[in-house]
Amino acid sequence: MGAKTKGTGAERELIHKLWALGWTACRVAGSGSMLYPSPDIIASKDKRHLAIECKTTGKDYQYFDVKEIKELMEFSKKSGAEPWLGIRFSREAWLFIHPSELIMTKNQFGIARKKAKEKGKNLDLVLRTKHL
Amino acid sequence: MGAKTKGTGAERELIHKLWALGWTACRVAGSGSMLYPSPDIIASKDKRHLAIECKTTGKDYQYFDVKEIKELMEFSKKSGAEPWLGIRFSREAWLFIHPSELIMTKNQFGIARKKAKEKGKNLDLVLRTKHL
Repeated sequence: MGAKTKGTGAERELIHKLWALGWTACRVAGSGSMLYPSPDIIASKDKRHLAIECKTTGKDYQYFDVKEIKELMEFSKKSGAEPWLGIRFSREAWLFIHPSELIMTKNQFGIARKKAKEKGKNLDLVLRTKHL
Repeated sequence: MGAKTKGTGAERELIHKLWALGWTACRVAGSGSMLYPSPDIIASKDKRHLAIECKTTGKDYQYFDVKEIKELMEFSKKSGAEPWLGIRFSREAWLFIHPSELIMTKNQFGIARKKAKEKGKNLDLVLRTKHL
């Protein structure tokens, strides 16, 4: 199974979890083809909206392109959504990181699995606590 | 050009307009395949969110399935978005109708082109005025 298929499967799983927890969750279509800065998933409940960029990795470090993070921040600011990075390291549950917690290295943003487990929130916690 | 292609083209055009007017706008991916009630487009600005179901028609009457309208209302209520029906009759600009303005006929909801022009809002007006 390719990385892209795996990523999509993980995104679908996250969407199922969100609906099960009483949220709406939509996968954004062909964000690339429209050329607008869009997150992978938009999740909403009672006027609280999350813009989530998703990554699935078998490695111990997850990188993000500067452009990707800038676009997530731009989208979130404009729309009034909270920006979140959802990372699914292998054998871990989804971890949610606020972009401000990433570290800049070699012109890319990133976070190590260990740091993500320390700093990241699980899905329940993200949904319970509004990030200011 | 088939109805589906035409519909997607019209949706893309609407998305371009929304971004040009300072909103974010995302097309929801394969809403059908996920089996969750999702609109065609989610448009947002400054914490105001619109859930838009889109139709393009060459006819003078646009029908909506009861299920489609129920799902749009359910999604909107849950997420805190405003529900809107975007209809693009041939040779007209997009017209936006609130679901409450549809008429129920023969187990379907619908609205005539003439009525839509009378009751509908154009895009600028929808974006300027919050529907309560």
